[in-house]
Formats: sequence, structure tokens, C-alpha cells
Amino acid sequence: PLVRVQDLTPEKAEQQIWVRARIHTSRAKGKQCFLVLRHQQFTVQALLAVGDRASKQMVKFAANLTKESIIDVEAVVKKVEQKIESCSQQDVELHVERIFVISQSEARLPLQLEDAVRPEGEGDETTTSQAIFRLQSGICQLFRDTLINKGFVEIQTPKIISAASEGGANVFTVSYFKTSAYLAQSPQLYKQMCICADFDKVFCVGPVFRAEDSNTHRHLTEFVGLDIEMAFNYHYHEVMDSITDTMVQIFKGLCDRFQTEIQTVNKQYPSEPFKFLEPTLRLEYKEAVAMLKAAGVEMGDEEDLSTPNEKLLGRLVKEKYDTDFYVLDKYPLAVRPFYTMPDPNNPKYSNSYDMFMRGEEILSGAQRIHDAQLLTERAMHHSIDLEKIKAYIDSFRYGAPPHAGGGIGLERVTMLYLGLHNVRQTSMFPRDPKRLTP
Amino acid sequence: PLVRVQDLTPEKAEQQIWVRARIHTSRAKGKQCFLVLRHQQFTVQALLAVGDRASKQMVKFAANLTKESIIDVEAVVKKVEQKIESCSQQDVELHVERIFVISQSEARLPLQLEDAVRPEGEGDETTTSQAIFRLQSGICQLFRDTLINKGFVEIQTPKIISAASEGGANVFTVSYFKTSAYLAQSPQLYKQMCICADFDKVFCVGPVFRAEDSNTHRHLTEFVGLDIEMAFNYHYHEVMDSITDTMVQIFKGLCDRFQTEIQTVNKQYPSEPFKFLEPTLRLEYKEAVAMLKAAGVEMGDEEDLSTPNEKLLGRLVKEKYDTDFYVLDKYPLAVRPFYTMPDPNNPKYSNSYDMFMRGEEILSGAQRIHDAQLLTERAMHHSIDLEKIKAYIDSFRYGAPPHAGGGIGLERVTMLYLGLHNVRQTSMFPRDPKRLTP
Repeated sequence: PLVRVQDLTPEKAEQQIWVRARIHTSRAKGKQCFLVLRHQQFTVQALLAVGDRASKQMVKFAANLTKESIIDVEAVVKKVEQKIESCSQQDVELHVERIFVISQSEARLPLQLEDAVRPEGEGDETTTSQAIFRLQSGICQLFRDTLINKGFVEIQTPKIISAASEGGANVFTVSYFKTSAYLAQSPQLYKQMCICADFDKVFCVGPVFRAEDSNTHRHLTEFVGLDIEMAFNYHYHEVMDSITDTMVQIFKGLCDRFQTEIQTVNKQYPSEPFKFLEPTLRLEYKEAVAMLKAAGVEMGDEEDLSTPNEKLLGRLVKEKYDTDFYVLDKYPLAVRPFYTMPDPNNPKYSNSYDMFMRGEEILSGAQRIHDAQLLTERAMHHSIDLEKIKAYIDSFRYGAPPHAGGGIGLERVTMLYLGLHNVRQTSMFPRDPKRLTP
Repeated sequence: PLVRVQDLTPEKAEQQIWVRARIHTSRAKGKQCFLVLRHQQFTVQALLAVGDRASKQMVKFAANLTKESIIDVEAVVKKVEQKIESCSQQDVELHVERIFVISQSEARLPLQLEDAVRPEGEGDETTTSQAIFRLQSGICQLFRDTLINKGFVEIQTPKIISAASEGGANVFTVSYFKTSAYLAQSPQLYKQMCICADFDKVFCVGPVFRAEDSNTHRHLTEFVGLDIEMAFNYHYHEVMDSITDTMVQIFKGLCDRFQTEIQTVNKQYPSEPFKFLEPTLRLEYKEAVAMLKAAGVEMGDEEDLSTPNEKLLGRLVKEKYDTDFYVLDKYPLAVRPFYTMPDPNNPKYSNSYDMFMRGEEILSGAQRIHDAQLLTERAMHHSIDLEKIKAYIDSFRYGAPPHAGGGIGLERVTMLYLGLHNVRQTSMFPRDPKRLTP
């Protein structure tokens, strides 16, 4: 059987083993050839020397193999006196006896994640992207496991829809047989229909499409939404607390299970460890405005947060509370969508919240209006064409429990947890207004 | 706190409790009113009688509440002498003292899953669809948990793509800013690119789009694909066995954890329990053709299986081996896509396989050609325009390990496990050539 590079440790010293790996680098030096072999995030040094184990022809053959070729190597594992700093496996090297070529490379990177591999610190492009996407897989797993433990049901919502939600701006059009359709900007309507069908607690993980011509570090035209919707008994904070606790479980799980990946990424992109409090820090919008004003920002009480103000607030919160994660509750009603439940105690505010990581928004959520009459009033107040949202409003005519929810952007969570600076680094195949390939 | 309907058992007898539920049915009879309250798959009888606990006005008020309204009920749990056959909670009833209306219904079903609710046997439409989609959530969870335990990584693949794979038939077109794009028919290219980037074992769960004008019981234009791709060491059967074992873990998990759901569905749609063997039965295509010929079917050795022949084969296999699940290995090369690896021992056959549940195909898979040269030859043999698949072929030029995989249709697995007869019953919001709503 094949041994994995990551399992090559001093415990295997003097064993004769087979390894399958890629040629990461290759260097010939007199009668010797040094290879660095790579598999996923892990590298090991391999040595061929003319002598008992290898012929002159074999050393020459090895030295001429193209980088990125995949080879099966038979070798003896040897402890080294001095740590090999350039490899992940620092305490051993391989003394090679046989090589089979599994797949010969034309000597270029197989997957060019151009944005993900811009070198900043030390570390290697390929191993960094391995680590990023392994950690991202972990975020999805922790998200779902936590919610399933809380009694949530996973649902599948359609991406091709007949009517553009919220009026039709920023939506992609699809040719659908003899008619036209749209790509869903959010699973929200469908999540809410499931709540109306008594599923109580639902989540979904899937693509979300935004035809916005936004060319920023944090916008994609297609991203992965982690969506939650939940009926509550007495107060929408039951839902808000479920979501913040889910995030905390994700942060803890990443810290516990993905240290190797975090360290691999940090080698190329150094960043401070992600900090969070338990329970999650909850601020009211009012308090945030007061903090910003105290820091010299001029803004109205019911004005929305600009991106620079969100970032500044993130720094102020970090200074004061030492956390990179918090929830901002009770947004002004005026800056939220029509379906947001007004605060029953203060009509200028609403039962809505955003969540932030390192000063950037990763979730927007709210209690939704579940009464068709109030929903109609609010839509009219926003001058929305009632005809276009009839199906949405009608879903609440047949008994709807009070409920709230929110949607999280997976690529943003990955980026901000790791302290990266561009969402294209955390999407394997990013889509933006200018990029559709590979 | 609120007690759930499913937790109303004789252990709670004589307790005063609060329940939130919907009015499933309501029947007034003299000075009494009988309600059946429903939450998810569970129902309980509730009784109001004029007397100590309820006034005449209250009984009248309760009798006039519309079906499907959501109410909070304060009641005492009472054991009953004779089982209440019409409810899931057969041993107790509620003696109601107070009712609050949480959400008044306009008296119609909130979610009209028309295809999912065609009554066949006994049982109730709403509870049946609750059970179907809870079990479907379980399939996704078991699929992912099993694969993560086997060392797989979850990946996210783009749905908007620049070029139509496999030549462009049956693909939906999307307007993408100033250009055109397509909806992905399969994540295959992206799964394979991850294998080329040394992820070794990947899976993804997401929508798959097919612009086929097929109006059958088993075709949807948008369905959920459970996709697997895996590098292997020595033989593609390593991959095939991983997939069949994953299916077996799903079947076992469903049987262990979802008996309530299976029984709820069976009440309305009776079916035989799903049978499978361990390890999974593996037949070669040749053997299947011989079985069909022995049963009187006339077909050539290299001819593809027609749908009726697949069904017949399913019955023959069930008779002979007593299993509803099996894998058919080594399909004729001629009936498989160009990227399928030929059988090295017999050029008429290939390293490819389909998997079947109750005689219907649920997975198609194969070892993929990982050598650019052979792939080019096979594409030319199939008269495929090399220009259109250049990016695909190029992905194998930079070192690619041998690999295989396959894609499973979630809705089909749910349908066939439960012995249902239409894939629209197992899609919450089905999409077909004629249906785009809700």
C-alpha cells in the first residue's frame, strides 16, 4: 500500500515504503539528485545518489522528470540530523530506490488559482489553496452538523425561478424552453414557505446569483449561501442566538480541527488569530452609531452604515471588547427590506440584525413579517408593485408562525476567518462581472 | 415552554401543558368541540366541553376557527381508554382550557405540493410530504458524513459556466452582462480539476441543470446532484466500492434513524421495504445481457439497456439475488461518453458502471481518461469538436492521477428508496419543461 507524504515521520525510519506524490522541485548536483515531493499540503525531501541503490542512468532519469509529474517512489525512510526547513516533513528524507511515472506533466501548474496564489509572505501557492479549501469544506460541515444537532432540516430550493424576487433588479435571465426565467438571488421565499409548512427549522447550502456589476474585493456574481430560517416561540432573539451560536461552533471547530490548514495559510498570508466571545457580543445599532460619533464620524441616527464605517466600527469594537465577531441588532426600519418586522416598541427601528467578522458583514437577517395584511402595508410604503410579489404575500394567508432567519456568504466567512483580503482567494472558480472561466 | 405534539404521551398524563399546533380538523357536536391538532407528522385529539374548563362562548369560538390556523393551547393531558386510531398520538387527548390564535388561516393548504400529495392509500398529504423531505435531508447528511469519514473533501463548483460541456445540447443559456453563459449540466469538469490539484477525494452537493424536454416520471430540468470523484491507487474498483459502500451506509442510516418517516410515507404510499446486500451485488454488463436474453429479450451484446429492459433486469435480479440495489459494471465502450476509460483487457468494453435501485438507474459513473493524448483520440473517434473541449483536455496535461467517479440524483434516490412513483413527489419545488412555480 502507498504511504502518504504527511505520514512520513521518524516513526517510519529505516522502513522500505512506497509513496505517490508530485515532483515539487528538482535539483541535480554531481552524482546526486534532490527532489522535493509534494502531496496536498505536505512536502518531503527525496534523495537519489549514484551507488548501491541507484544507477547513473536512474539519477539522470530522475533529474530530467518534469515538475508536477506524479510518480510512485520506492524508498527507505531515513532520519536526518538537521531539520529540513524547506519541507513540511522536517525530520526525515527518502532514499530512493525505484521510480515509476504515473503521469508526466507538461511542467506547469495544473490548477491556476491566480488570485488565490498571489504570494505575500513565505509559503507556497499550491499548498495554500489546498489548505484554504480544506478549511472551507470544514466550515460547511460544521455549519450543517451544528444545525442538525439543533433539530434543523436541510432543504433544497430551486435556482431557476419564474419571477424575480424584490422587483427584478440585479437578476440573471435564463432562456427556459419557450419562455424566460431567472436565477434565484436568495432562497428566502422558499425557506419561508417551508416554515409555513411547519418545518420549524430549516437550512440550505447552495449557489446564490447576483447580477451586480460590483468589482470589489468582496463581491462575486455567484457565491455559496449558507441560509437559515427558523420559527420561534416568543422572541426573534431565539433565532439570532441560534445563528450566533452556530457561528461560534464553527469558529471553535475550525480552531480545534484545522490548525494545520490555518498555519499553512498563515505562512503565506500572515494574520492575527480570529477572536470571538461566548456568548457573542450583541450591540444595538444605536450604540454603534454612538461609538462612531464618539470617534468623530458624522452620521444620522437612521442612516445606514457605509463600508468604511463598518470597518471603523469593527476596529472600535475590537479595541473595546477584544472580539472579531459580533452582531449588530435593531437596524433602522428605513434601511431594511420591506418584509422586515418593525420593532413593536419603536417604529423607527426593526427586528433585524447583521453579523460582522473583522469589521465586514457576513450575514444579514431579520424577523420576517408573517401577516399578509402588514406585509401588504409595508410593501406599499416601499412603493413595491403588489402584483409582482403576490405569490410571496399569499404564502402567509394560510397560517404562518412567527419566524426569522438570515443568509451567510461562505466565501466571505472563509476569507475573514483566515484574515485574507479578497473573496476570489476563497472561491475555487470565482465568478465576477469579468470572469466566467475556468 | 411549549411541548411538541410528538411528545404528548401517557407519561405526560394529568400535566398542564402548552402546545403550539395547527388545526388539522375541527368538529362541533352539541356542547363539545373536537379538534385534531397537527404539528409536522404528528397529530393529537383536543377536546373542549362546556363546563368547568370552557365557557359556551369559548367552545363556539374554537369551533369557528379556520382549519390550518396556528394556535397556542393550554390543556391538561388525559389518557384515553380506547386508542384514537385517527391520530399519531393514540393514547392521550388534550382537555383544552385556553386558546390563543397565533396566525389565522384563510383555510387552504399553505404549501400545495400537488404531485406529492396525490392520495393513494390512507394517510395524509401534509404529513406525508413532511416525512419525505425529512428523510431526504437525512440522505444528504448520511451521504456527506460517510464521505467525510472516508477522507473526502467537500467542494463548491460554479453553476454559471462559459462553455457548454459535451458539445452544447440540452443546456440552458444565461444572459451574463454583455455576453452569454450556460448553466452547468454536471460538476464533472470541476471535480476532475480538483483531482488534478491533488484533492484526492472530493464530493459536492448542488443543483444540476438539464434543458431536456423530457416529460417523464423521473426527469426534472433542475435536480440535486450528489457527486463524487476520487483518485485511486491501483484499480477503479477502489472507487466503485467506495460509492457502493456509501450507498449502503445511506440505506442503513435511513433504516435506523428514519423509521417514523418511512412508516408515515408507507401509510399513504404502501411499498415493500428496500432490500440490499452487503457487500453490494456487482454484475458485469455481459451477465445482465445474458439474463435478459434468457428471459426472452432480443438485444445485441453492445447495445445499451432500454428503460423497460432496465426495469425487467431489476425484477430478474430481485428474484435471483433478493436485492433492490446493485451495480452493473463494464458497459460497452460504444454506449458511454468519450471520456470513459476503455477496458484494457477488452476494447469493446469500458471501466464504467451504473447503479440501480428498484430497477431504475440512480448513478452513472466511470474511470475517466486522465491522459490528454488518449482523451484526444477518443474525442476524435466520437467526432467531437476538439476546439470546444480544449480546456477540458488541457486540464490533464500537467500531471493527473488515475481517477473515477459518478453522479447520483437525490430526488431519484429518495423516490426509489421509498418506493414512490414520481420524482415530483420528492422535489419540494419541482422544475420540468412545463413547471417553473412556485
